[in-house]
This record gives sequence, structure tokens and C-alpha cells, in this order.
Amino acid sequence: MTGTMSGRLAVVGSGPGDRRYLTPEADAALASAQALYGYGPYLDRVPERAGQSRYPSDNREEGARAEAALRHAAQGASVAVVSGGDPGVFAMAAAICEAIESGPESWRALDVSFVPGITAMLAVAARIGAPLGHDFCALSLSDNLKPWALVERRLDAAASAGFVIALYNPVSRARPWQFGKAVERLRRHLPQSTPVVFGRAVGRPDERVSVIALDAAAAAKADMATLVIVGTRETRIIARPGRSPLVYTPRAVAEANA
Amino acid sequence: MTGTMSGRLAVVGSGPGDRRYLTPEADAALASAQALYGYGPYLDRVPERAGQSRYPSDNREEGARAEAALRHAAQGASVAVVSGGDPGVFAMAAAICEAIESGPESWRALDVSFVPGITAMLAVAARIGAPLGHDFCALSLSDNLKPWALVERRLDAAASAGFVIALYNPVSRARPWQFGKAVERLRRHLPQSTPVVFGRAVGRPDERVSVIALDAAAAAKADMATLVIVGTRETRIIARPGRSPLVYTPRAVAEANA
Repeated sequence: MTGTMSGRLAVVGSGPGDRRYLTPEADAALASAQALYGYGPYLDRVPERAGQSRYPSDNREEGARAEAALRHAAQGASVAVVSGGDPGVFAMAAAICEAIESGPESWRALDVSFVPGITAMLAVAARIGAPLGHDFCALSLSDNLKPWALVERRLDAAASAGFVIALYNPVSRARPWQFGKAVERLRRHLPQSTPVVFGRAVGRPDERVSVIALDAAAAAKADMATLVIVGTRETRIIARPGRSPLVYTPRAVAEANA
Repeated sequence: MTGTMSGRLAVVGSGPGDRRYLTPEADAALASAQALYGYGPYLDRVPERAGQSRYPSDNREEGARAEAALRHAAQGASVAVVSGGDPGVFAMAAAICEAIESGPESWRALDVSFVPGITAMLAVAARIGAPLGHDFCALSLSDNLKPWALVERRLDAAASAGFVIALYNPVSRARPWQFGKAVERLRRHLPQSTPVVFGRAVGRPDERVSVIALDAAAAAKADMATLVIVGTRETRIIARPGRSPLVYTPRAVAEANA
């Protein structure tokens, strides 16, 4: 609160789960901040440091959180906005940019930076092999900010063109039917045996990663902490004696699928 | 070389560029390995440690490198394969899975793990704002392992459905025309003013990140170290006095583009 224009704001990706995923750059950005903003559970994973203030908020308040953080930085403070995973993937970076574009001119003069993090699809993929081993896309199933018809059009486009599909936000209390509908849609394009990976709470104590076939996927449990990866015609499962199977998408596309 | 089955192999993402992106999990995996395999320039970025052997290879030898690393691990050694960026994104993880599936049965019994890293598109996006702020895909322009017609079909599908597109491997000495062709293709679907981000050598001393309009993109310089992000109809540029512009894709899709 020095009143100068020396304020700065860093939007920091803390990765999924615990500190094993926190990059040195992200760690340094969090350590040097005077004020931390973020969704409560993400803030809770950042170690407490003397002299640092914390402003937790609800996960549906991204716009208001972005504005509060920018206002604070504009007062001269060093502010960090904590984002789980990567801030640029369905997270706080876009909300900060939106707020800067529509906010007071002075916000454009602020020193704003973005610190990348391990996003959920990379962590889930790493747990089970290499399901994203070929061309892939990342799609949010939330229809809060886009019409459901557009989600379906994108599912059609991605599956029929042979992209692996990482589904973010598959389910929430307010959106109970979207995941089932999406699976139904994907079954128009993909074999019933297509591997589908469910990754829940990766990097946390209650982590659970599993693979099932597309024809059983709709009934499978997904929740707000789940990231789903839907394979292609090419995606393969390697059974291993005494070990969990590996799932991967080969680097080459077979003639028959090209 | 103990001859026991205690060997293990970790496929480790070292992120782009310097150590600021190296996660604690990746650092620990590299530190505990007895043997390091990888593309020479990636190995050169890993600090030397006493008692550790190194096996650099050329970047077109992924299959042979995977087999050599697995053979070494099967002899009882602790082996790490170093991958720039994330090993699961157009990198070594799929090559390792392929080698396991087609190799001797004993390789399936090995302790194999994958350690995620910051992949280039996340690092480039963070440098310039939030261009991946909405649904996006990652597509390799290399037609070494898939027909060019399939690349074009995927470009059509992704651009017409409104995905942001991250282009990996846009150009190489052996593939000089693919990037120009891809831009030509994208111009069928996207406005000429669509922002295109070029990120070169992010995290390294010669880093360069810039944004130009799609109609000028074909002539722009891309090389093997460049990652290109092509926006959508929604992607916006925020001009900032005295600072480089921010590029971002809003979280919401406007009615007119849905």
C-alpha cells in the first residue's frame, strides 16, 4: 500500500497436488509476494510465510478475485494469484486478462506475469503412460460460459479427426448430466473399446487413476476433482504382470486410421 | 548391472530451458539415476553428478534410445530418460511404451515411471498472457509418422470448431514447406487478423516471443525451437503503454461465434 506504481501481480501455477510439482519459478513467485489471492483449497497448499496476507475466495468468483488482486497490486503491493495446475488452462490467467482489458487504464501499466505449472492432463497422463502421445485437445465440459451445442460440436470435431481428448470439469453439482451426454456423443465416433482414463486428485493422498472402455465410461464415477482422457482408435493398453497397465497413444498413425 | 530385476526406468520431463521450470519430482528422479539417456542438448542441461553415466543420442533416434534405456534398466540399473518439456507431449514417453509393448516380456515387469514437465505451449502461453484460455488442441506438423492429408484434416477440424491450436514441430530442415501450407489451410477458416503467437527458445537466453496476424504468419520465421499458437475468432490483444501486449482467449464464447 505504498501508493506508488511499483505494484506487480504474478499469476502462479502451483501444479496439481503437493509440492513435488511446484517449479522453482513458481515457488519464488509465491515466496516474494506480500499478498496471496486464490481459491481457498489452493491457498491452503501454499506454506505460510511471515508478513504475507491471504485472501481466499470461492471457486466461482474468478472475475471478482481477479479485480481484487489487480486493485491491490495497483496500490503498489506485490500480489500473487495462486492457480492450481497451470494458470493458462481453464484457470485464472484468462480472468486476469479480461479484468485488465475492461478495467481502469492504469492496470495496463502494471507489471503482470504468468508462471506456468503442471496442468492436470499432464499429471494424469504421466501416471498411466502416454495417452497424450499423439495430437490431442483439451476441452472443458462446463457450459456455464459457452452453449452446450458448441461443446458437442467440438467433441464431434475432435473425435472424428482422431484427436485424443482431455476433458476438464467433467461434472459438478450444478452440472450433473454433461459428462454422460459427452460420452454418448463420443460413442458415435469411437469404438466401444476405446480406452478412457479417469484421473482423480492426482498428486494428493487420495489419488486414483484407472482405465476403462468407452462403453462403460458414462456410468463411471467422475467428480469435480477428476480429469478424463479419452483415447483414439490408436490408443493401446499394455497389460503387465503384477503391475498396473500402461495406456499410450503411438506416435505413428496406422494407414487404416489415417 | 547387478543382474537382478530391481532395475527401474524414469522418463523425466525437464521442462523448457533452464532449471526454473524443473519440478522437485523431476530433479529427484534425475539425481537418483545411475544412467541418463536423452537427446544431447537436453542432457547438457542436467547438472553433472559423480558416478552417473550419460548416453546422449541424436533427436531422430527415439526408438533406439528407448530400447537402449530399457535394456540397461533390465540389467538392474536405475535409468532416467531425459525429455525436454513434458515427456508425454510429442516426446519420449510414447516411444518408451512402444518399446515395452514390442520388446521382451521381461520389460513389462520393470518399474517404469513418467515424471511430467512444463511443455512448450504452457511456457509460451505464460510469456504472453493466456492464449490457451479456452478449449485448445496440440498438433504436431511433422508428417514423418502420419500423412500430411491427416494433418490438414485436423487443422480443418480444430479451426472450424473454434479450438486454439498449438503447433509443435512447425519446421525442420527436412520439412521446410509444412508450416506455410498449414497457415494457408487455417486462413480458410479464420479471420486474417487472428493473433498468432511465435515462441522461440522460451526459458533460454535467446528467448523471443512475438504476436502477428494470421495473414502475415506464413512468412514469419519459425524453426525447430519454435512453438506457434494460433488463436480463434475470440482471441484478443491488449495493447499496453510501455509494455509488450497481452494476448488471451476469453473464458466465455460470444453468441456470434458459438
